Amino acid sequence: MSIKVHGYAMSTCTARVLLCLSEKGLEYEVVPVDVANGAHKQQPYLSLNPFGQIPAFEDGDVKIFESRAISKYLARKYKDTGIDLLGSSSLTVSTIVDTWMEVESHQFNSPMQAIIRQMIVNPIFGIATDEKIIETELEKLGKVLDVYEERLSKCKYLGGDFYSLADLHHIPYLVYFMRTPKSSVITSRPHVSAWWNDISSRPATVKVAETMKV
Amino acid sequence: MSIKVHGYAMSTCTARVLLCLSEKGLEYEVVPVDVANGAHKQQPYLSLNPFGQIPAFEDGDVKIFESRAISKYLARKYKDTGIDLLGSSSLTVSTIVDTWMEVESHQFNSPMQAIIRQMIVNPIFGIATDEKIIETELEKLGKVLDVYEERLSKCKYLGGDFYSLADLHHIPYLVYFMRTPKSSVITSRPHVSAWWNDISSRPATVKVAETMKV
Repeated sequence: MSIKVHGYAMSTCTARVLLCLSEKGLEYEVVPVDVANGAHKQQPYLSLNPFGQIPAFEDGDVKIFESRAISKYLARKYKDTGIDLLGSSSLTVSTIVDTWMEVESHQFNSPMQAIIRQMIVNPIFGIATDEKIIETELEKLGKVLDVYEERLSKCKYLGGDFYSLADLHHIPYLVYFMRTPKSSVITSRPHVSAWWNDISSRPATVKVAETMKV
Repeated sequence: MSIKVHGYAMSTCTARVLLCLSEKGLEYEVVPVDVANGAHKQQPYLSLNPFGQIPAFEDGDVKIFESRAISKYLARKYKDTGIDLLGSSSLTVSTIVDTWMEVESHQFNSPMQAIIRQMIVNPIFGIATDEKIIETELEKLGKVLDVYEERLSKCKYLGGDFYSLADLHHIPYLVYFMRTPKSSVITSRPHVSAWWNDISSRPATVKVAETMKV
């Protein structure tokens, strides 16, 4: 087996890669990283990911880090395996997918990351939850999702009428977010809610989400 | 003239697009957006960028937002005009460029954005500078740049031995950062400093940086 993902499914960035592998139906091995003992901040792990973060990825001789770069690599290398995740039919179509991948990175990720840290990560480590941060970030997230609601009223998925990395990249944080008491931020927006119901019920999503236990 | 950039050169995200256009030697028109009167938060601008942010972009019938999606579109559509900015020679090479574009988005951008907001944007609007935030974010930035220092000791540019979008995407914030009293964060790291000297002296960078006046 040549594809190795160094990480653990609980990590949202690892899950992003696993979702892509599962959509493509590729065989892979998850190599656990002993984060509790700081293995990710030491060699040999740092040679796989110099930022000491999870995950790192190997496909034979190709070694990559940054989850979204890994998913793009997989979508390009295995374009004809399983569904196309890049909107490769034309430059215009793939640019729309690119645009919504950038939206995930630069509009959605920051408030969502802050909320998940406060509501899910902090309690694990016995750190107090800051309600003020949650409130502020939920307000930012709501404004972002208002734009998603409008977008998803016009097409079924963010990149167009087909599932793509633009949708997939959102899934890991949403899996956790939908387990919080704030999930109505999603369900109260009809088109966002329908989109989430659709992408969360994909077999690849169900398979990976089941392994995302905190 | 069919390429229009709605924005203004002072905006780092607009500058990112202008840098790409300048590297490609393409003709373009900058269409000013009346931000002072909130034109970016109203129609018709919202039909170009639903998040009400600067810039928005048009190339004939193609309308895009998110600066990094625009630069990727330009690099792909005009691949054979001027230099290749994507490492298109192979999937492995372009994946390394992709990886360092993701590093810019997910490691570099956040602390740098916070620092520029505190040191440059806040004073313009008469908002007090928070020294604690600057200190915290400079520490994060320093750790990121330590990885860059190691990377740039092995190859001239972030994506390899050729200039690419992985470098270009960093330029707008660095133009402003190098005008602050904290520029030694760059100049004290020999390989990062040499990289900055190289990419900041490119004719396209000089041309765009001259227009970045606050």
